[in-house]
Amino acid sequence: MHLGLVQINPHLGAIDRNLRMILSHIDAARQAGCDLVVFPELAICGYPPLDLLWRSGFVKKMEGALGEIARASEEIGIIVGGVSSRAKKGRANLADRSSLSDGAEIDLFNSAFLFVDGVLVGEEAKLMLPTFDVYSEERYFTPAPGAQVFEFRGMRLGINVCEDLWIDDGPTDTQASLGADWVINISASPFFVGKGAIRRRLASRRAVENGVTLVYVNLVGAQDELVYDGGSFIMGPSGDLLYQAPYFDEGLFILDTEKLAPIVPQPQPEIESIRRAIVVGIHDYLAKNGFSRVIIGLSGGIDSALVAALAVEALGKEKVTAVFLPSEITSQESRDDATMFAHRLGIEFLDIGIAEVIDAYHSALPQSLTGLPAENLQARARGTLLMALANERNALVLATGNKSEIAVGYNTLYGDTVGAIAPIADLYKTQVYQLAKALGETIPQNIVEKAPTAELRPGQRDEDDLPPYALLDAILLDLIEKNASRKDLIASGFPEKIVDEILSRYYKSEYKRRQLPLGIKVSPKAFGIGRRMPITHAYRT
Amino acid sequence: MHLGLVQINPHLGAIDRNLRMILSHIDAARQAGCDLVVFPELAICGYPPLDLLWRSGFVKKMEGALGEIARASEEIGIIVGGVSSRAKKGRANLADRSSLSDGAEIDLFNSAFLFVDGVLVGEEAKLMLPTFDVYSEERYFTPAPGAQVFEFRGMRLGINVCEDLWIDDGPTDTQASLGADWVINISASPFFVGKGAIRRRLASRRAVENGVTLVYVNLVGAQDELVYDGGSFIMGPSGDLLYQAPYFDEGLFILDTEKLAPIVPQPQPEIESIRRAIVVGIHDYLAKNGFSRVIIGLSGGIDSALVAALAVEALGKEKVTAVFLPSEITSQESRDDATMFAHRLGIEFLDIGIAEVIDAYHSALPQSLTGLPAENLQARARGTLLMALANERNALVLATGNKSEIAVGYNTLYGDTVGAIAPIADLYKTQVYQLAKALGETIPQNIVEKAPTAELRPGQRDEDDLPPYALLDAILLDLIEKNASRKDLIASGFPEKIVDEILSRYYKSEYKRRQLPLGIKVSPKAFGIGRRMPITHAYRT
Repeated sequence: MHLGLVQINPHLGAIDRNLRMILSHIDAARQAGCDLVVFPELAICGYPPLDLLWRSGFVKKMEGALGEIARASEEIGIIVGGVSSRAKKGRANLADRSSLSDGAEIDLFNSAFLFVDGVLVGEEAKLMLPTFDVYSEERYFTPAPGAQVFEFRGMRLGINVCEDLWIDDGPTDTQASLGADWVINISASPFFVGKGAIRRRLASRRAVENGVTLVYVNLVGAQDELVYDGGSFIMGPSGDLLYQAPYFDEGLFILDTEKLAPIVPQPQPEIESIRRAIVVGIHDYLAKNGFSRVIIGLSGGIDSALVAALAVEALGKEKVTAVFLPSEITSQESRDDATMFAHRLGIEFLDIGIAEVIDAYHSALPQSLTGLPAENLQARARGTLLMALANERNALVLATGNKSEIAVGYNTLYGDTVGAIAPIADLYKTQVYQLAKALGETIPQNIVEKAPTAELRPGQRDEDDLPPYALLDAILLDLIEKNASRKDLIASGFPEKIVDEILSRYYKSEYKRRQLPLGIKVSPKAFGIGRRMPITHAYRT
Repeated sequence: MHLGLVQINPHLGAIDRNLRMILSHIDAARQAGCDLVVFPELAICGYPPLDLLWRSGFVKKMEGALGEIARASEEIGIIVGGVSSRAKKGRANLADRSSLSDGAEIDLFNSAFLFVDGVLVGEEAKLMLPTFDVYSEERYFTPAPGAQVFEFRGMRLGINVCEDLWIDDGPTDTQASLGADWVINISASPFFVGKGAIRRRLASRRAVENGVTLVYVNLVGAQDELVYDGGSFIMGPSGDLLYQAPYFDEGLFILDTEKLAPIVPQPQPEIESIRRAIVVGIHDYLAKNGFSRVIIGLSGGIDSALVAALAVEALGKEKVTAVFLPSEITSQESRDDATMFAHRLGIEFLDIGIAEVIDAYHSALPQSLTGLPAENLQARARGTLLMALANERNALVLATGNKSEIAVGYNTLYGDTVGAIAPIADLYKTQVYQLAKALGETIPQNIVEKAPTAELRPGQRDEDDLPPYALLDAILLDLIEKNASRKDLIASGFPEKIVDEILSRYYKSEYKRRQLPLGIKVSPKAFGIGRRMPITHAYRT
């Protein structure tokens, strides 16, 4: 059998446009002699559609697209992800709450559809609805009642959707027990570092447990804070990898199932996969929202330099403007580093002094500001200038904050936090260094090596205000990704005084995180939709 | 039987402090001769704890508090809401995803506990886990396997939790069929306008269907964007209201069940309930986050005047500072209205001109700004000044945007949107007028009656940029609260051109809404955690 795996990058909600992409891949697959072509989860609308699912007409429009795909399945089999609906029966009557219009009257299903020769052969709705981390599918979907197996060209096919693969004793097992030879999982699985290997390990186990060949097809492209990394693959019944599609690349990948043989997985270096995810994240946010230009406040430090370098990679150097915004505190070294770096990148460089703006604020205010309020004022004057330039040029500001700063609130809301997206918001400072170094010559040695500073008061160094980043990041990793308590952290040997200081800063800065731009998720636990913390609370351990 | 209903206002995560409040109410109830005292859902930790539930040690601490409550139940019955945990068995093995630490190894239950005479008599876990609007309980909790009935002082008691009451054929029905005479529902039910009557209608139906007496106990106080309005009540088996506790007031309310007789529900005027909710929302946000002072940008218009008046009611006039921030465009009428109003309220009033700050920005920028970028600049200069004053005085800024503006993006991100909370963010402009008028003499006639203007360019009127508010709000209500599509809106008779303009503004301004401060929810569908829209998408109908 010739099998086509399609890694597409849908534009969320652009059902007509996504349909045209799908139909064009179907044509190409048919012309290439494919028997079956497989598209990822919710390929028709994009993932996650969130409350758009409840917009009157949204699901109906998708059901119309499914009709077109059915008609396009002459002489070929198609598996594609979409939503179907059915009037609710005999359950949950949300009395008096229909005003919430949260799909109260209909059940929605997150389904894989199998079309063959112009006919809908079957629909397999997702059984396991993820409602953890960034997922909230229980909010929208009804689980399928059970798993099935379909006949296709003399084979028995099990089809299931994303999370269905991750659960022990789930649909893959049922489908194998119903005689499936092949199980096809269609996914919308967002990237985090190391996820490719995790997916392969999982699929290998499922294939072996059930003695089936497992086909895994994933989306590509970015949607708000999530980046889908593709990397579709086939795992044989003895747990060997038989096929691996590229990561992050859109396309139709065709293979002959008769000719599959074990291959060795090519490990992706972690830092390289992070780089690609961020570049896709920047590119797609701009492209899908109708922008092409970005503005970045370049301080001479490593964070903004890294963001500028990644933006150039995503958009091209002619689309990136760096703005150096010196105050009276700014050092000559910062100016030299910023100027030289922008020149080396070949991007537009503006040098806009903020001293007069700051003076004007001080004159306007009834009392003189010192300390933190004065530091915040500088950051906000810069944020305002960046936004003014962006508004004037129809560009977007990229925020340059990293995960360590964001975790402890070492930033100024409406100041250095302004922007449409925050490309490195999910990188700890120690990872910022790793990624900067991995870019080779791009980021000058001096920018990488000098001591980090917010440069908001004379002689300031980050490490005057915070613990050394190596220590800070080690604590933050346990705190954020393992939910370590104060007690756990101290038991791990971290100094009590520093743990208390970090916990206090971490909890107290939640209000800032709630107002941040989208950060591109590259870790298992990013700040953003996958993490839901109250602002008002008194829990401090 | 003497029954005590406790409307408490827990501080989220302050388990020790909440426990002390609970123990003190138990003592008071015992001294007053109560046989049974009932606390609301998750009274021990507050609602919603969100991802705090996954903090290592959080649930254990709560289980410790339950032990203390057990010991306090000598000679009294206690029903109280808390969380229990149990090691997961024989299901969902989230292979390789334990790094997400999303409670993968344990099941959590949102339970009502019945303690009598020092002993835990039973635990009834919530069966129906709401995962719509502002709720995401499927993310955290495991549903109970089934409903039970407990013996208490010769009665048969059914106990269930919040959502359990809202579902047809739910636990109340099961408990009635198991012989329950009384069913007690403990809730954490946030306010929206008209919710009290909805709850009574629902409870009346359940009571009649099942021939039981229904006791409903609700939280009070604010938690981020949610306000719990209390209003606990008892509904008799023939559907009559037998008891009604006050709305919004904290306290222990005691009644003799032998002496209950039908009473007539006292309707709460809608606008009055909205006023109280917002006042509680402002008060509790500040008190629970350790602040007492607020700063408000007073423009001379109705929105900021209303916010100032509500802040005075919540915090006292000595805690509220109004800042008038005129530019060269600002009219004498605005200055007169703002000055006079602040004087009438008796609040501190600062007049800080922004002309020199704006000039300094224009001098700093490489090109002169006109149009929208110049308008945004003014708003951002004001935002920066308000934040500087707030930082200097350890005060919080209250944002003054309303729901109509926010819906169509008629605001400046990092400008008039800055603040910790946005008290009237869930009021359409037409409701802003209603509430302002309901405050009687507080807000001067001239402020209420003049044409609304953002005053960002000479002679500007909101209605030059937007449809008249009566029309705009009618469209927005259908769009936001009924999910009406373009087609639906046009079928309702709204002009096509205006519908398209509003839809375009609505979808395009999602990125601003993602970065707004918390708005206090007073409607069935507020912007905030109960509404989850992608920023990047192409759906425009």
